[in-house]
Amino acid sequence: MQCADLEKPAVGPGEFVFGVVGLSHGHIYDMTDGLLKAGAELRWVYDPSPEKMEAFLRKYPQAKAARSEEEVLSDPEVRLVAAAAIPCDRAALGVRVMESGKDYFTDKAPLISLEQLDAAKAACARTGRRYFVFYSERLCSESAVCAARLIEQGRIGRVLQVMGMGPHRLGPPEKRPDWFYRKAQYGGILCDIGSHQIEQYLFFSGAKDASIMSSHVANYQHPDYPELEDFGEVSLVGDNGTSGYLRVDWFTPGGLRTWGDGRTFILGTDGYMELRKYVNVGVGPEKDQVFLVDHQGEHLIHAAGQTGIPFFGQMIRDCLDGTETAMTQAHIFKAAELCVRAQMAARKLV
Amino acid sequence: MQCADLEKPAVGPGEFVFGVVGLSHGHIYDMTDGLLKAGAELRWVYDPSPEKMEAFLRKYPQAKAARSEEEVLSDPEVRLVAAAAIPCDRAALGVRVMESGKDYFTDKAPLISLEQLDAAKAACARTGRRYFVFYSERLCSESAVCAARLIEQGRIGRVLQVMGMGPHRLGPPEKRPDWFYRKAQYGGILCDIGSHQIEQYLFFSGAKDASIMSSHVANYQHPDYPELEDFGEVSLVGDNGTSGYLRVDWFTPGGLRTWGDGRTFILGTDGYMELRKYVNVGVGPEKDQVFLVDHQGEHLIHAAGQTGIPFFGQMIRDCLDGTETAMTQAHIFKAAELCVRAQMAARKLV
Repeated sequence: MQCADLEKPAVGPGEFVFGVVGLSHGHIYDMTDGLLKAGAELRWVYDPSPEKMEAFLRKYPQAKAARSEEEVLSDPEVRLVAAAAIPCDRAALGVRVMESGKDYFTDKAPLISLEQLDAAKAACARTGRRYFVFYSERLCSESAVCAARLIEQGRIGRVLQVMGMGPHRLGPPEKRPDWFYRKAQYGGILCDIGSHQIEQYLFFSGAKDASIMSSHVANYQHPDYPELEDFGEVSLVGDNGTSGYLRVDWFTPGGLRTWGDGRTFILGTDGYMELRKYVNVGVGPEKDQVFLVDHQGEHLIHAAGQTGIPFFGQMIRDCLDGTETAMTQAHIFKAAELCVRAQMAARKLV
Repeated sequence: MQCADLEKPAVGPGEFVFGVVGLSHGHIYDMTDGLLKAGAELRWVYDPSPEKMEAFLRKYPQAKAARSEEEVLSDPEVRLVAAAAIPCDRAALGVRVMESGKDYFTDKAPLISLEQLDAAKAACARTGRRYFVFYSERLCSESAVCAARLIEQGRIGRVLQVMGMGPHRLGPPEKRPDWFYRKAQYGGILCDIGSHQIEQYLFFSGAKDASIMSSHVANYQHPDYPELEDFGEVSLVGDNGTSGYLRVDWFTPGGLRTWGDGRTFILGTDGYMELRKYVNVGVGPEKDQVFLVDHQGEHLIHAAGQTGIPFFGQMIRDCLDGTETAMTQAHIFKAAELCVRAQMAARKLV
């Protein structure tokens, strides 16, 4: 993760201790880095795989290898548990974490069924703890942070539509873990990488709820992995009348210089923005370029290194102060719910 | 129209005579220019408005002012009638043109109801004449011509999805004609500017038919013009399993250096393309840039001035030779049908 180093630590040394449980997805490294940069202290790590533990401990020698999940959850000094379990296990782990009196910070997708959603919501209500989600394509994107500020300043008027493209590179298929190809475990493409996009729609549009108007998934080109969905799309309409559309896929070609040409288009009454998040395709490797057009002109804003990534510090303060500055719990669960509903409603094209 | 001048005339002087009837939309000038460049001879012009006639004759002094539509239709040397009538009148005019033994070339949208579609189809079948449509956003876009060739060469593998954005500038609302704001006359935003996008989806995807999965229209910001739709979107699925999405609007901000930042994204199994048709926003005025990514790398192809605009010459030859090289009649009517169906199915957001 190359988040800009503009944020001051949110806490002093030892003020906010966290543990890590579940190393199934590499995102856990970004999550850990973000927490450390924001001033948190890494105490524990646990995963059933000795290889994964070893790799993590090589990178973070300050962590102690726990013998079990329970060892982490029973440490009263641990305030938050960061986790990248297999998607189908994320909600149950979150419930155990919250039941142990700690806040939970999971990789996306945070859960993959409505039953899991209900369990997570109930545990939040019962314990008063938080269930945070690492929506990295917004939270760790300086162009997204920049766009949010521009919208707040009214630079494009009222937001009418948000359109997101989240192509991803599959890479050599055999290098992916088994669960990546089992739908009951990864949840489907709209739950998985689609969740970044649905969360962004809700966030940028300001909608508090939305209806899934149509959603599709397909396995166009990977017959050897019949449960993989290599394409997905959703059309949503928000409770504030805004529209959202997202398209995700696993077709990033080998020739792109990065893993995906992620874009976000935000249409407003008085202007629009395009975020080129990870690459300016055909031009250069610079990340986080914001193209803004308003009534005055066309503007290219280089957000990389300029806006910072306030999320991790805000999340830590939310845990300590009982605030909701990083993300509201209602927003988190609504995004999760819509992903599950989009996936459930999805018509399979191929 | 700034189509590249790469095409040789398709006919010699006097070989292909056409008349113009209906000057309600400025597109008629692009249509006339294209025909003239391809070698056609302009014989007549007719419109009930003396001002519109005068302006047209100033630009094309070779045209004769007809006293009536009938005067044009009864000239046996006229092979084709080009027309930009008010959208609701285009089908009936087309039927009269074909009944007079001539081919018809109308601005888009070619028609705005299923009844009109049936009448146009029946007239085609009865007379053996053609009903061509000026889908300028593909036919007069060298990036679109270039993209079609690249697809044909297999450069992005099999096409899976086509996504189109067709923002347009409204300009001072009072400068638009009355019919622009009357839905019964212009047909709705999906019939009108949406038709460019639906036609492109069919063309690039290779689908012969498609289902409208969801479609929306809105009047977000123009309460003084209650029948205007300033936003529209459609999700389609083709009979070949491909997906299409399009978004159109009348929100191009004053600061954009051209009328609209039209884009087309074409996703294939082995690469993808983005067409920036009219502007490279934030960078420069160069039109028709094609960004292609395949397994070898990222490629920027400057199509402007390189590919030519074969449409007009092909259409003239189709009229003379009974071929279907420019566009098949089935494709034309299917695109028209899907626009009407998308419009009929559209849920109004606001």
